[in-house]
Amino acid sequence: MKLYDGGRAPNPRRVRIFLAEKGITVPLVPVDLGGLEHKGAAFTALNPMQRLPALALDDGTVLTESIAICRYFEALHPQPPLFGRDPQDRAVVEMWERRVEFHLLTPVSNVFRHSHPAMKEMEVPQVPAFGEASRPKAVAFLEFLDGELSRRPYVAGDRYSVADITALVSVDFMKPVKLAVPDHLAHVRRWHAEVSARPSAKA
Amino acid sequence: MKLYDGGRAPNPRRVRIFLAEKGITVPLVPVDLGGLEHKGAAFTALNPMQRLPALALDDGTVLTESIAICRYFEALHPQPPLFGRDPQDRAVVEMWERRVEFHLLTPVSNVFRHSHPAMKEMEVPQVPAFGEASRPKAVAFLEFLDGELSRRPYVAGDRYSVADITALVSVDFMKPVKLAVPDHLAHVRRWHAEVSARPSAKA
Repeated sequence: MKLYDGGRAPNPRRVRIFLAEKGITVPLVPVDLGGLEHKGAAFTALNPMQRLPALALDDGTVLTESIAICRYFEALHPQPPLFGRDPQDRAVVEMWERRVEFHLLTPVSNVFRHSHPAMKEMEVPQVPAFGEASRPKAVAFLEFLDGELSRRPYVAGDRYSVADITALVSVDFMKPVKLAVPDHLAHVRRWHAEVSARPSAKA
Repeated sequence: MKLYDGGRAPNPRRVRIFLAEKGITVPLVPVDLGGLEHKGAAFTALNPMQRLPALALDDGTVLTESIAICRYFEALHPQPPLFGRDPQDRAVVEMWERRVEFHLLTPVSNVFRHSHPAMKEMEVPQVPAFGEASRPKAVAFLEFLDGELSRRPYVAGDRYSVADITALVSVDFMKPVKLAVPDHLAHVRRWHAEVSARPSAKA
């Protein structure tokens, strides 16, 4: 198999962190997002959605969507479990993964897509007012998450999970759009320092 | 357990269709979305995100996020499988569920949230230009899906899956925002007629 990878973008990084936590090595094929290589005919044939990452399996199947790719690896390599340990724990992990995705990664991405000059050709039309309206939504979710992280070490419970990976790439993606974790969110800051210190965060 | 339900809204309906396909009966607790009951203190204590549906388990755990709730029921009642049958099939189903969610349900919801008068107090601020920009994105995904459905019966393959459920509620949610499946998308229309004819579609 081969993983089509997109460098610093948050979704490809989600999968690389996941693989690093699992200790799995997959050959990477770099795709030049800045040069719009993902919009070209060759990559579009692999993923018509023109998004990264994409995992090409040996039988020709192409899997896309970061979390679908991660869950596939979870099935092949169950240890350590990053999607939960039993049906209820798995539901709690998925709930938190999705809450972070919809209420943090999505608004931060919307700020980027609708206000960053680099996205002018990729997000058509950019609606800057929507980008701006997304900023306080990301911060409001961090305020909520801070309360949650005052009561447990990780986003979805006592163990590091895929929800922490999504939250980490979301917080780190705030930097290019000039959003910052407010100083008074001590629990988010504690959590961010801890997950950033794991070797996987460099992936 | 009890399922807090929100009538005609697409996410509560996703879970009701899923349960109907499984033949599972869960006591429903109606929550009045029109009367903003989901923004009140009682429901906010259950789901701080103030969204429906929410599944309250007997041990006090509250599960939210439609797909997390569905996957929990899939684990408890594996037959018929609606999330795929083996690791690769499960990844393909999740890929399609997410593609539909991000490229159809999300833009249709964005049209509703940012342009419908009923959402004025719920989506603050409404950005009508963003709602309008979301319309062609929903239609573009349906064009793409039409090609896919020319080659197979269901969204994610040869079998009905949770990806069909998300696609069905998305297409039906186009009506209140005055979007329609274009006449020439014969395969989407064939698929929509078939999944709408299943008894579960009335759930």
